[in-house]
Amino acid sequence: METISKAKIGWLRSLQQKKHREAEQVFVAEGEKMVLEGIRSSAVQTVCIVVHSESTHLVADAKDVPVLIAGNKEMEQISAFKTPNKLLAVFRRPGFPGNQSGLTLALDSVQDPGNMGTLLRLADWFGIEEIVCSRETVDCFNPKVIQASMGAIFRISVRYTNLSSYLSGANVPVYGALLNGEQYTGIQYDRKGILLMGNEGNGISATLLPFISHPVTIPRIGQAESLNVATAAAILIAEMVR
Amino acid sequence: METISKAKIGWLRSLQQKKHREAEQVFVAEGEKMVLEGIRSSAVQTVCIVVHSESTHLVADAKDVPVLIAGNKEMEQISAFKTPNKLLAVFRRPGFPGNQSGLTLALDSVQDPGNMGTLLRLADWFGIEEIVCSRETVDCFNPKVIQASMGAIFRISVRYTNLSSYLSGANVPVYGALLNGEQYTGIQYDRKGILLMGNEGNGISATLLPFISHPVTIPRIGQAESLNVATAAAILIAEMVR
Repeated sequence: METISKAKIGWLRSLQQKKHREAEQVFVAEGEKMVLEGIRSSAVQTVCIVVHSESTHLVADAKDVPVLIAGNKEMEQISAFKTPNKLLAVFRRPGFPGNQSGLTLALDSVQDPGNMGTLLRLADWFGIEEIVCSRETVDCFNPKVIQASMGAIFRISVRYTNLSSYLSGANVPVYGALLNGEQYTGIQYDRKGILLMGNEGNGISATLLPFISHPVTIPRIGQAESLNVATAAAILIAEMVR
Repeated sequence: METISKAKIGWLRSLQQKKHREAEQVFVAEGEKMVLEGIRSSAVQTVCIVVHSESTHLVADAKDVPVLIAGNKEMEQISAFKTPNKLLAVFRRPGFPGNQSGLTLALDSVQDPGNMGTLLRLADWFGIEEIVCSRETVDCFNPKVIQASMGAIFRISVRYTNLSSYLSGANVPVYGALLNGEQYTGIQYDRKGILLMGNEGNGISATLLPFISHPVTIPRIGQAESLNVATAAAILIAEMVR
């Protein structure tokens, strides 16, 4: 263990930006639960740990990993959150085999980090191994996504690609969440397939509509204009794996 | 229309606090879409509108309502958000008849404003007319709840009460979301009933468990520890109204 240096603080702060996280192929997780899960995970390699000087007992058994000790002021400087945690760690990005079989979630330009994290957690609950995103989708290594994912980032493969190319090459059914599709409860879902969810405000891009083999809709009973993307995905995925 | 005064700015800032909103029985909505929906809604009365000096055309037809004009600095002072909107309004709290029939959502100590707003929106989509909350549940007139509710706050009755008393007096089935209940797809749901959802971290309080007539569970296929409360509620409600 050693006291954190100004240079390290600068480096950790730079990782709040996507370009720096990408250049180094790392991400930052904050909070005791998430950090301890990451350290124990065999999927990711721990680059370093930052711990508040009053909480060093939390990482007493962290071996072969640099542990940097910080005070209140330093934690505030490093943290991406208003209320900094006692523990934070930098991890190398995991490499997963991707989807071997089953269902894949495809996201077209989902923007809100909370939604993205909730979608990761949802995929993790239902055993979906891979999320494929358009390049306009929010970075899955954004601190708020990591926070909302509740550890799913250590288990789910997320990749960014051109969705038109990806969907045009898929030889499985593509179920697209639309407002004017077939009622979602009346469909016989394949065990292998892609569920495509669109942007929070605009839905699925017009350019992707031709790749949807099965447009699906959750019937509205009340008056809301739309459902949140994560709640809609939850209802559809629960039905598909039923 | 008149330029906003310092006194009005102070009053509007005070409404960011629950106690002041409660004392005056009002709430604040921000953003063009939400404010215009509120002004047109017959369920709520508009107390006043604050508009950015460059956007007065948005409320040109607002009659019989005080319209206050503000600049960038004033909007920043009043807004509950980092990026202030061009339009904001204070509304008197709606009075709804409450649940006449059908399904009621009961929330035990849900804490996150984003989750609460998403639950309101979900209820609004599925025609649930009333949400009954424990007193520890986040205030439904919190600015972040209003924002995430996407207008549902103008249509759904939310009331805060002692949940033990409420549930013990209910003469309908109480479906409680638990990790060790009956599989949710195998249940014959009553058209009238209460769905009880618990706190994000701790689930349903031990004191409320005796009131659950039907413990229900969404089976886990993957590895996540739990589902987000709004996504779990979405899956259960979609099944109950099926």
